[in-house]
Amino acid sequence: MEVYFIGTGGGAPSKRGLPAFLVRRQGFNVLLDCGEGTQITMINHGLNIMAINLIAITHLHADHVLGLPSLIQTMGMYSRKEKLYIIGDVKDLLNKVFEETYFEPPFKIEYVDSYEDNELKITPFKTCHVVKSQGYLIEEKDKKNIDIEKLTKEGIKDWRIIRQLKAGKEVIFNGRKLYPEDYLITKKGIRIAYTGDTAICDSVINSVKGVDLLIHDSTFLDDINAKEYGHSTVTDAATVAKEAGVKRLALVHISGRYKDAKIMEEIAKRTFWKSFLPDDLSYYILKD
Amino acid sequence: MEVYFIGTGGGAPSKRGLPAFLVRRQGFNVLLDCGEGTQITMINHGLNIMAINLIAITHLHADHVLGLPSLIQTMGMYSRKEKLYIIGDVKDLLNKVFEETYFEPPFKIEYVDSYEDNELKITPFKTCHVVKSQGYLIEEKDKKNIDIEKLTKEGIKDWRIIRQLKAGKEVIFNGRKLYPEDYLITKKGIRIAYTGDTAICDSVINSVKGVDLLIHDSTFLDDINAKEYGHSTVTDAATVAKEAGVKRLALVHISGRYKDAKIMEEIAKRTFWKSFLPDDLSYYILKD
Repeated sequence: MEVYFIGTGGGAPSKRGLPAFLVRRQGFNVLLDCGEGTQITMINHGLNIMAINLIAITHLHADHVLGLPSLIQTMGMYSRKEKLYIIGDVKDLLNKVFEETYFEPPFKIEYVDSYEDNELKITPFKTCHVVKSQGYLIEEKDKKNIDIEKLTKEGIKDWRIIRQLKAGKEVIFNGRKLYPEDYLITKKGIRIAYTGDTAICDSVINSVKGVDLLIHDSTFLDDINAKEYGHSTVTDAATVAKEAGVKRLALVHISGRYKDAKIMEEIAKRTFWKSFLPDDLSYYILKD
Repeated sequence: MEVYFIGTGGGAPSKRGLPAFLVRRQGFNVLLDCGEGTQITMINHGLNIMAINLIAITHLHADHVLGLPSLIQTMGMYSRKEKLYIIGDVKDLLNKVFEETYFEPPFKIEYVDSYEDNELKITPFKTCHVVKSQGYLIEEKDKKNIDIEKLTKEGIKDWRIIRQLKAGKEVIFNGRKLYPEDYLITKKGIRIAYTGDTAICDSVINSVKGVDLLIHDSTFLDDINAKEYGHSTVTDAATVAKEAGVKRLALVHISGRYKDAKIMEEIAKRTFWKSFLPDDLSYYILKD
């Protein structure tokens, strides 16, 4: 699983782009938020907009959503046929803009509250912003793999038996009952959380516990009362990461007022040392 | 007067930005069309979005207008107070987007059909696209300057007399009647026309006669039946320029299919030699 940081900036346009994050996984790509310019950056940097399967929008502030109508229109211009899933409260906005700009999508848009297939699950969680908002948890499902090493050690080589165990069935082997749970190894799925805009709050801490990567609002340094604006400081973000016991924290939604934002990473690391400040167009690979 | 070519590309995002052109004049700045990314390009290249006085939109296709809601929201975020004039049929689109994204402009937006002050006049003209559309003519008003050379030659040095003539009044000097029209020189104002999307058509030719700069749709090379799409080929654009007797032609709205568009300039020059192909972020100065 890879995360592309398309736009790591805050609400006002700056050298950092407006919020957008692409989570790529073989067979399924998710775009998290879609600020103005998202499609332009993607197209100009070789990220295929047609491969997006699902778009999840955290809230309807302009900087998180106004790249969406034109992205969908370009997908239409490129003759997309596959269904596009959308999570987030954007149906009215899209329909109004499409109507005003003479556009009708030539593909199906399915508005859903969450998404699940055999391998992946995407669910919203409550965040604490000044308007209705939600973050997203993207979870690969755990996989059960057969423990070949153990089977070999015990002299079990018959593939009919192995197939049964793999399917979760009990088997008799040489008069002994084999239980599948003894021969299956759980491969934990990767988990990523993205908050969108949020102040530090318990519902986020509780929702992102132990994720492999937390992408958290870090709009300000500690000189601002971020909570008043429904945002977080870098120390807020690092505190959430620490309390939720996440593996890695990406600091995003950086305000344009900080010309050299490197200091933000340094400050976050004082609270949670596995913090990093991604640049636009950088990416992060999460290994199995 | 200067024209900044912010986005010279066609409808689908490419290396050339989506349509937007800034006409700067001391005291009054006009933005013509506002494709997605316009504010981002302007801010990142030192063009002051707050100095825009009037925005004129040619038609409501996404590539010409979807940068407008966010541009206005950023003006609001930067605490704009001055009135913004808008020409073009965008009031409903803006109000719907503002409502959906929790935004209310903190400054007045005045929707007008044309604009005129003491020095400048902006009027729409009919173009020929597949949806309701119009181009714009931006005209500096002619100025009357006193012909000091002639006055000096005739020995008229009395500033009370000169002031009267300048104000358009007849004066008696040494028993001779002086008529103001004999002592005033007309300084022609600069005139710029922008078509937006259009097929070659008579109403454009008739509307842009003799302008100093014509910015014309030149989406395609001659291999495409441009008219069918409501667009022009470079030869169409050059033909309009020639028949309208304009001084200079800028070829814009270049389709992303042409990786090296330099050939478009060469072909246009066969019909109208004062054609040029501006790059994004280039500018053109029109001298008095």
